[in-house]
Amino acid sequence: MTTLIPTPTFDDVLAAAARIAPYAHATPVLRSRALDAESGASLAFKAEHLQRIGAFKFRGACNAVWSLDDATAARGVVTHSSGNHGAALALAALGRDIPCHVVVPEGAVRAKLAAIEHYGAILHRCAPTIAAREAMCAQVQADTGASAIHPYTDPRVIAGQGTAALELLTAHPDLDALVVPLGGGGLAAGTALVVRALAPRCKLYLAEPEGAADGARSFASGVLDHDFVPETVCDGLRGTLGALNFEILRGNAQVLTADDAQTVAAMRLLWTRTKQLVEPSSAIALAAVRAHRSHFQNRKIGILLSGGNVDLDALPTLFALAPGA
Amino acid sequence: MTTLIPTPTFDDVLAAAARIAPYAHATPVLRSRALDAESGASLAFKAEHLQRIGAFKFRGACNAVWSLDDATAARGVVTHSSGNHGAALALAALGRDIPCHVVVPEGAVRAKLAAIEHYGAILHRCAPTIAAREAMCAQVQADTGASAIHPYTDPRVIAGQGTAALELLTAHPDLDALVVPLGGGGLAAGTALVVRALAPRCKLYLAEPEGAADGARSFASGVLDHDFVPETVCDGLRGTLGALNFEILRGNAQVLTADDAQTVAAMRLLWTRTKQLVEPSSAIALAAVRAHRSHFQNRKIGILLSGGNVDLDALPTLFALAPGA
Repeated sequence: MTTLIPTPTFDDVLAAAARIAPYAHATPVLRSRALDAESGASLAFKAEHLQRIGAFKFRGACNAVWSLDDATAARGVVTHSSGNHGAALALAALGRDIPCHVVVPEGAVRAKLAAIEHYGAILHRCAPTIAAREAMCAQVQADTGASAIHPYTDPRVIAGQGTAALELLTAHPDLDALVVPLGGGGLAAGTALVVRALAPRCKLYLAEPEGAADGARSFASGVLDHDFVPETVCDGLRGTLGALNFEILRGNAQVLTADDAQTVAAMRLLWTRTKQLVEPSSAIALAAVRAHRSHFQNRKIGILLSGGNVDLDALPTLFALAPGA
Repeated sequence: MTTLIPTPTFDDVLAAAARIAPYAHATPVLRSRALDAESGASLAFKAEHLQRIGAFKFRGACNAVWSLDDATAARGVVTHSSGNHGAALALAALGRDIPCHVVVPEGAVRAKLAAIEHYGAILHRCAPTIAAREAMCAQVQADTGASAIHPYTDPRVIAGQGTAALELLTAHPDLDALVVPLGGGGLAAGTALVVRALAPRCKLYLAEPEGAADGARSFASGVLDHDFVPETVCDGLRGTLGALNFEILRGNAQVLTADDAQTVAAMRLLWTRTKQLVEPSSAIALAAVRAHRSHFQNRKIGILLSGGNVDLDALPTLFALAPGA
């Protein structure tokens, strides 16, 4: 059986913006003289680490939850992400007062599970394999009638993630380029829909870890290439680029990679200069700007700071990659 | 020879606000549902870590620099603080295009000196004793005619620091209490001038490290008590309470102490919940609220986040004081 997934459009992003407005924060755009001077560009940082649950993921989850008709919504939603999407979906479901089921593998980080439970989600534990997670998800769907909301290939999620760029480009319509982290491609694809419609002369760059560069390889070869084992400190970017996401992005964006040392150095700069606690998966966008300076000199650049959920106990390991001066 | 130091007034704070407006940021007031729930109070955080140089200190230094008449200003300013006040005075002097001299002890932290030099100040090195620093300061004054600007006993500095509370109480006139870190007392005294004039029913609490509790002892005995060796991670609060500051504060404020473990735990909470990188000397205000809950339950509380200049390389040592759950 094949399910035809509809490709989301810019109109879907506009509808998402109206739908999530009562629940999501319109996050600020931050500036830093020091980072402008250091990078040789004019940088506008969209502060999604200040979004609810500390990441842009709330936008997509919220749009998906509020896109359901009442009867479908009443049966709840389900996902198998134990990261930011799990927390985002739980909080969105709590806002609509419907059940949220999250399938979590044995061994998942306790602090993340506590956050998901804090928002009232029901946890379903399974073995730490993809097969076990999908089987458990299917079981929950069969038992409850809950709607599965995929973290990044769901068109409602993609449209919701696009609302961050919609806010940024509405406030700063003259950006020469926009730099967005690339993982599964939900944020990237949503952003591409907005750039194409609102600012076609603005270049879209996707910042990807060298240790999880399936996107870069897929763009280079023209076909999705998932044959890799991710190894990067950007824990939000270890997922593989989705097919729908790739379809939306190809021809509309360019991938730039940065290694983990560059990413941690950029994170330290952001912490020190802006006092904003962003996670490595956010800092990679600034790392890409610094690693590929020729694309950005004297330009107006939008940078999407995607989240701020840092594991503080892992900082010594992170900082060892890029010690201070 | 005795110099009569004029006690600053609320009018001086108003004048300072007008004087520094072209140079200093009007910092935002931040809220956090999670921290409200955790503390059982309604918390309004004045974000001075987003002030220029990353600390409220720029307000006082800027007011002092722009209070000088042109001829006096042209001869420059001098201080012997190698911390935030040194950087603040350097940036303020740069804004007026006058010389700034900073006397620094051998062995001072290189990163801090680099920041001060970055703003164009002239460094004068001396032996790491108070006598050597004061002698070198006097020498610079004699050689150049520069005006000495003390980090916290100078009435222009006190009036300048008061502008942070002025902004906070103007935006939130109904606060039941205000909590401010206590070190030398520049910020505390400036805040007291504002609270007394604008919100006399608002209680002023001073948060002080247990390991540098000269303020608590001075308030208890009624006389300044400097007989201690500070031992605290709050590096901005190791100075001793100034006489003028004590005079302004006594009868108008109450000291609450917190130990370093409580302060680091509060800092971790602030980082995790608000994604704001505040330093221990800031976090102690929230630590005091959490350590003395009965004063604050169900009240509207203003918390002055004084700065965000954290030494990232010292984090493992800090976090060891209050490990994560």
